[in-house]
Amino acid sequence: MPQSTQAPVLARRQILAGSATALAAVGLGSFSQAAGAQAAAPAASAAPAAAGAKPLPAYAAWKDASALIQHSSSTLETKRSVFGMGLITPSEQLYVRNNLPAPNASILDDREAWQLEVEGVKSARSLSLRELKTLGVETLTMVLQCSGNGRGFFPSKPSGTPWTVGAAGCVVWTGVPVRQVVDLLGGVLPGHGFMTGTGGEALPAGLDPKSIVVERSVPAQAMGEALLAWEMNGQPISLAHGGPLRLIVPGYQGVNQIKYIKRLAFTAQESDAKIMAHGYRISPPGSKADPSQPSVLEMVVKSWINSPLAERPGVAGPVQIQGVAFGGLHGIKRVEVSIDGGKTWRDARLVGPDLGKYAWRQFALAAKLAPGSHTLVSRATDTAGNVQPEQRMENVGGYNNNSWADHAVSVTLA
Amino acid sequence: MPQSTQAPVLARRQILAGSATALAAVGLGSFSQAAGAQAAAPAASAAPAAAGAKPLPAYAAWKDASALIQHSSSTLETKRSVFGMGLITPSEQLYVRNNLPAPNASILDDREAWQLEVEGVKSARSLSLRELKTLGVETLTMVLQCSGNGRGFFPSKPSGTPWTVGAAGCVVWTGVPVRQVVDLLGGVLPGHGFMTGTGGEALPAGLDPKSIVVERSVPAQAMGEALLAWEMNGQPISLAHGGPLRLIVPGYQGVNQIKYIKRLAFTAQESDAKIMAHGYRISPPGSKADPSQPSVLEMVVKSWINSPLAERPGVAGPVQIQGVAFGGLHGIKRVEVSIDGGKTWRDARLVGPDLGKYAWRQFALAAKLAPGSHTLVSRATDTAGNVQPEQRMENVGGYNNNSWADHAVSVTLA
Repeated sequence: MPQSTQAPVLARRQILAGSATALAAVGLGSFSQAAGAQAAAPAASAAPAAAGAKPLPAYAAWKDASALIQHSSSTLETKRSVFGMGLITPSEQLYVRNNLPAPNASILDDREAWQLEVEGVKSARSLSLRELKTLGVETLTMVLQCSGNGRGFFPSKPSGTPWTVGAAGCVVWTGVPVRQVVDLLGGVLPGHGFMTGTGGEALPAGLDPKSIVVERSVPAQAMGEALLAWEMNGQPISLAHGGPLRLIVPGYQGVNQIKYIKRLAFTAQESDAKIMAHGYRISPPGSKADPSQPSVLEMVVKSWINSPLAERPGVAGPVQIQGVAFGGLHGIKRVEVSIDGGKTWRDARLVGPDLGKYAWRQFALAAKLAPGSHTLVSRATDTAGNVQPEQRMENVGGYNNNSWADHAVSVTLA
Repeated sequence: MPQSTQAPVLARRQILAGSATALAAVGLGSFSQAAGAQAAAPAASAAPAAAGAKPLPAYAAWKDASALIQHSSSTLETKRSVFGMGLITPSEQLYVRNNLPAPNASILDDREAWQLEVEGVKSARSLSLRELKTLGVETLTMVLQCSGNGRGFFPSKPSGTPWTVGAAGCVVWTGVPVRQVVDLLGGVLPGHGFMTGTGGEALPAGLDPKSIVVERSVPAQAMGEALLAWEMNGQPISLAHGGPLRLIVPGYQGVNQIKYIKRLAFTAQESDAKIMAHGYRISPPGSKADPSQPSVLEMVVKSWINSPLAERPGVAGPVQIQGVAFGGLHGIKRVEVSIDGGKTWRDARLVGPDLGKYAWRQFALAAKLAPGSHTLVSRATDTAGNVQPEQRMENVGGYNNNSWADHAVSVTLA
């Protein structure tokens, strides 16, 4: 992963190109449209068009292009067929979704000099990454998922990237617990019920910063297991994934995992930045996003099958049906699999070690499939008893799709 | 990880070059010398000479050269400074040690067609990888370590690669449990107390195959959690790491994890192949290796510090001392750290989720270091009560070094 030695010239070119994209996105007035209007939503079984044909953007050039569907320079999706049974998604296969162009790669030249402002605590001040590293260290495994993952299954074709399943991965983060930083600074001020993170992306000049900045608020109690992280999958965090420092709020959708974090503030109100107030809201069909609607925060219980798939169906006879399941704030208790499109279900087996409630579990079901066509589906239940529903919850932005029917796999066996 | 699309021409060139190395090794008459006679053993703090200067061998060209010390075309060591806190060693940073040149990359063209002969069972027969995948699936996390890891600390300078700590990593394997295959085939024949795996490397013509073949025997009860694996870290196993199919015997030293396995036999006797009978034996100083001496089988309890290191000592004041610990067949119960070279000890904290008894645990100790020089050491205890010793067990081959004194880190802080 030689991203830290990436040529600054290329990085700058990328940023210039990316800035134009950001301006276009702002012009469109919706954060979910930052990737631009994409073509028709792909079916689960459709082969991605021209995958690997475009070179990867410079900030992600170290990734495995053959494992990724490149929707745009800021939206790369992991192909469903490359998810294995290995617990952790390799960094070079992990999806990328950037709301703004990545900062100049030079911010990684001296990682430890990166400064974080901490506010809304008794003794507000700036801390360097060097100092943060001396305060404590914790490692956690977590599903990272874009809240628009599964948008491609919405027949309403919401604007935004038509992700199917690959805007998600299970990764390992290492950093200092937020609570240790807060304790050092005397604790959160009374009445400051939100934890607000601000990203360090460069903002285009001439525009209201509040209309562009990546700034998100989560309930302050989410601090419980949150990290200020400097490693992903055992390596210094790459530019593509928010290095040198990223806020990790386990169990929350990806937009809340603030990259290049430069400010962590405990606040009495949610941020009034556009990405918080009008972006990433669960807006009923036909409505416009507004701050009264639910924000995209915790992930919801979800699962899908990765093998077999239409493009590698195998042969009739015994098969091991395999996939992944995760539960947002709750671990996975049970996964059921149906080989008849949801008419009848059998309990699948959870495979491999449990990496904690924020990680995904892999599952497998031994089945026999006769020659012909089959519709395979999976349905997860979390430890709080939440069951993955058959139907998606319709919403304008195409968020939080955990419909088991939408994630079905159709295979035809010889 | 585009190794499966690696140019066959390059692969062939590599194999031709590698064959010469193999012949030289056979000429030397010791498997531990396959890497050729290396220069002086490096100190733990020595920067590797000309690291990254040589291009990686073709079969491992997808690896991160900046993370590796290239001892020879068949021996690549992970730099101590790149081990992070991320539980799993990224594949592109993982060490490589091949006893023979890797087979032609064309063996990965149709992975599922790979054939494994199973013998010493009631119904011996050949199974394809395609069939193996239908029988069952399990995932486990395991330290993979060359038994010569730590050889570089032996003052006797044993022949063989002078690894310090980087001939080890913690990786995830997915495959079918050996016991499921054995059950399918009617069980092990009575009196067949060894499980013998044979690698699929091409053997140079004109030499006694028994003198070259990679064939190892372990006690048959090691079958308990053994896998026939087709994935490493969630991806199809690369050529460098034994794909398409590798025997995984958790808790055992790397030489027993047979790459490109083509035959799995339950046998009444240990293999008489040279690598078993006369290679990898714990030979007392001054003796010659023979089959009466202990073979290199289970790993022994071990730990080492990865941060701080001499090349990045940090500054005086608070520090998080970090490292890894593992216990072979037993999990880790305790890790102690000393900042005074072993005079006094404090319990370190185990960090991150427990991935099972065969995985390593990361540890951290918050300490304050004054300006000046410090000798930092760690000492692990496994769940069976085995304590990492101060001194290495001297032996001709330089195997099984788990001395905590040898793994000390010296740092000088401003």
